[in-house]
Amino acid sequence: MQQSVLVSAKDLKTFGQRVLQKVGVSKQHAEETSEILVDANLRGIDTHGIYLIDLYARRLQKKLINPVPKFIFEKKRAGLGILDADFSLGQPATLEASRKAVELAKDAGVGIVTVKNSNHFGAAAYYAEYIAKQDCIGLVMCDGECDVIPYGGKEKFLGTNPICCCVPSISQPWYCMDMATSEVAFGKVRAAAEAGKSIPPNWAVDRNGQPVTDAKQAYAVVPMSGVKGYALGLMIEILSSRLTGMPYGAHIIRKFDDWDNRAFMGHYIQAIDIKAFCPVDVFKKRMDELIQDLKKQPKAFGFNEILIPGEPEWRNKVNREKEGCPIRQEDIELLAQLGKELGVPFPTE
Amino acid sequence: MQQSVLVSAKDLKTFGQRVLQKVGVSKQHAEETSEILVDANLRGIDTHGIYLIDLYARRLQKKLINPVPKFIFEKKRAGLGILDADFSLGQPATLEASRKAVELAKDAGVGIVTVKNSNHFGAAAYYAEYIAKQDCIGLVMCDGECDVIPYGGKEKFLGTNPICCCVPSISQPWYCMDMATSEVAFGKVRAAAEAGKSIPPNWAVDRNGQPVTDAKQAYAVVPMSGVKGYALGLMIEILSSRLTGMPYGAHIIRKFDDWDNRAFMGHYIQAIDIKAFCPVDVFKKRMDELIQDLKKQPKAFGFNEILIPGEPEWRNKVNREKEGCPIRQEDIELLAQLGKELGVPFPTE
Repeated sequence: MQQSVLVSAKDLKTFGQRVLQKVGVSKQHAEETSEILVDANLRGIDTHGIYLIDLYARRLQKKLINPVPKFIFEKKRAGLGILDADFSLGQPATLEASRKAVELAKDAGVGIVTVKNSNHFGAAAYYAEYIAKQDCIGLVMCDGECDVIPYGGKEKFLGTNPICCCVPSISQPWYCMDMATSEVAFGKVRAAAEAGKSIPPNWAVDRNGQPVTDAKQAYAVVPMSGVKGYALGLMIEILSSRLTGMPYGAHIIRKFDDWDNRAFMGHYIQAIDIKAFCPVDVFKKRMDELIQDLKKQPKAFGFNEILIPGEPEWRNKVNREKEGCPIRQEDIELLAQLGKELGVPFPTE
Repeated sequence: MQQSVLVSAKDLKTFGQRVLQKVGVSKQHAEETSEILVDANLRGIDTHGIYLIDLYARRLQKKLINPVPKFIFEKKRAGLGILDADFSLGQPATLEASRKAVELAKDAGVGIVTVKNSNHFGAAAYYAEYIAKQDCIGLVMCDGECDVIPYGGKEKFLGTNPICCCVPSISQPWYCMDMATSEVAFGKVRAAAEAGKSIPPNWAVDRNGQPVTDAKQAYAVVPMSGVKGYALGLMIEILSSRLTGMPYGAHIIRKFDDWDNRAFMGHYIQAIDIKAFCPVDVFKKRMDELIQDLKKQPKAFGFNEILIPGEPEWRNKVNREKEGCPIRQEDIELLAQLGKELGVPFPTE
């Protein structure tokens, strides 16, 4: 078990923002990116958290991510637009796309914005929740570099292709699904391999496409529920890449490994204006009714409550806002080193 | 193994149409409903096929389904509308909603139509494919009477809540995902129980919410991939029921069992106009590129090809259009009896 140190979200945000500004990113984009990364730490999704600032800063220094992008938004129809992110950091681009999607939805009832020429956008939940805060239903999808075999194949082809949906209710927590369409993230397999643990037979396959329980033999992860997750992942691949001609899974560069090429990421953002259907408070009451009904359902053996999608992350956030975010020693070293190079001391220094 | 008889799709359609007209349905609605049911037989989705005409006719006779509905379409915004189906058969209502969604999409770029006061709509693929034939991306979702436990619960709460997406390409078959968000349909569990076979431990639970392998002990099915399918099924529940105030899973009547109450089904239909993004042939070429690339991927042990979602159903259709649809002896008896009562002989009579 790695040691962690608790660091306040505020300090992490300031650190991230200063780092990004040091490598040429505007104050606004630096703030947004840092805010979105640390939001993932707060939710407990540390794989999408502040440690990524090291990757981003190094890609920015090499201009593989454009520190000074010019967004071009093209409104194509009343409910539809394309945002050319100009190789920006994915976070400010996706946030801008979310704003535009809401703007379109407030007019046309629904707004779809696809983003092209973007980068890794972190965790999707931040954008879907942003949209939900504007009294819309937020739907966010994105493909990614390949880690997942197609059903029947043995070579990596699809990304873990997340789908995220957030819906507001009166009470907290709101419904917020944010999930990869692979059975598990590859990170979980790697963690099991490092810990010398075995994995369930429906998580990953070896080089021959055969299911493995020895995590060390795992080469790729499998789609959730096999053929179903394959179909769903492929839908997300299509919506993220085919409408705007971005590359798909197998053709997307590996951001941690490829230091010669820019990424060409595509995202799909959708907002539905609740007010177009009914008064917002009526809808939110209907959501509360559903959620409260769910909570009252009899529990299966071994469970003492039924959670709403997003509730574990919400609880983490309540907790970590008070107590700070645990940052692994390994990540502290990574970030401290980066900070040293850029003259921005990491909060624990 | 039950015996089946091959019956031509044309004869099945004519039979279905005549039956529905006999119980007071208009020629157009009878044609549409029968066409959509038999399309499911053609695809090999016999659980959503012509045998349902018996259920529908009996509910129509009792006016639990309205044979002479008046659709009211309310366009709420440029890209959004609500169709009140007036307790119609679900098929003509959903087809009408699909037409309206395309109409909205051709203007606003995207069109969403939610349907309320509807009934069982059969298989979703017909509608999504209809939308795709208009050079749009079709997305269809629907909740249903409860059969699925929520993650952590032991009582049925969600429907098997299908999600369906169809995307046109140049070559056939097109991408067409149509799947329940439960790990399996309850019908598969029932079939195993009848055949005295065991089921995998991730399919169903007993009365205590414990996984079972003895199909006879199965009480409810589980969401695909556990917590992920639960989240996805809940999204579909929300989009189908909460925007229009329709009942959700646990409050939806069981259409085979409840002969006193009308159903109040809600559906979610979405069309995205491809032309709003790029020329349609450019998009379709991009789809072909993705599909051909997938097909060329190395196969896992035990597989000699990689199929596109919808391809097995497309192959069935090609085959059954020539050879006819296998109808089980049990269903022939059911339909022959219905036909006798209404003076419409079943094709095999």
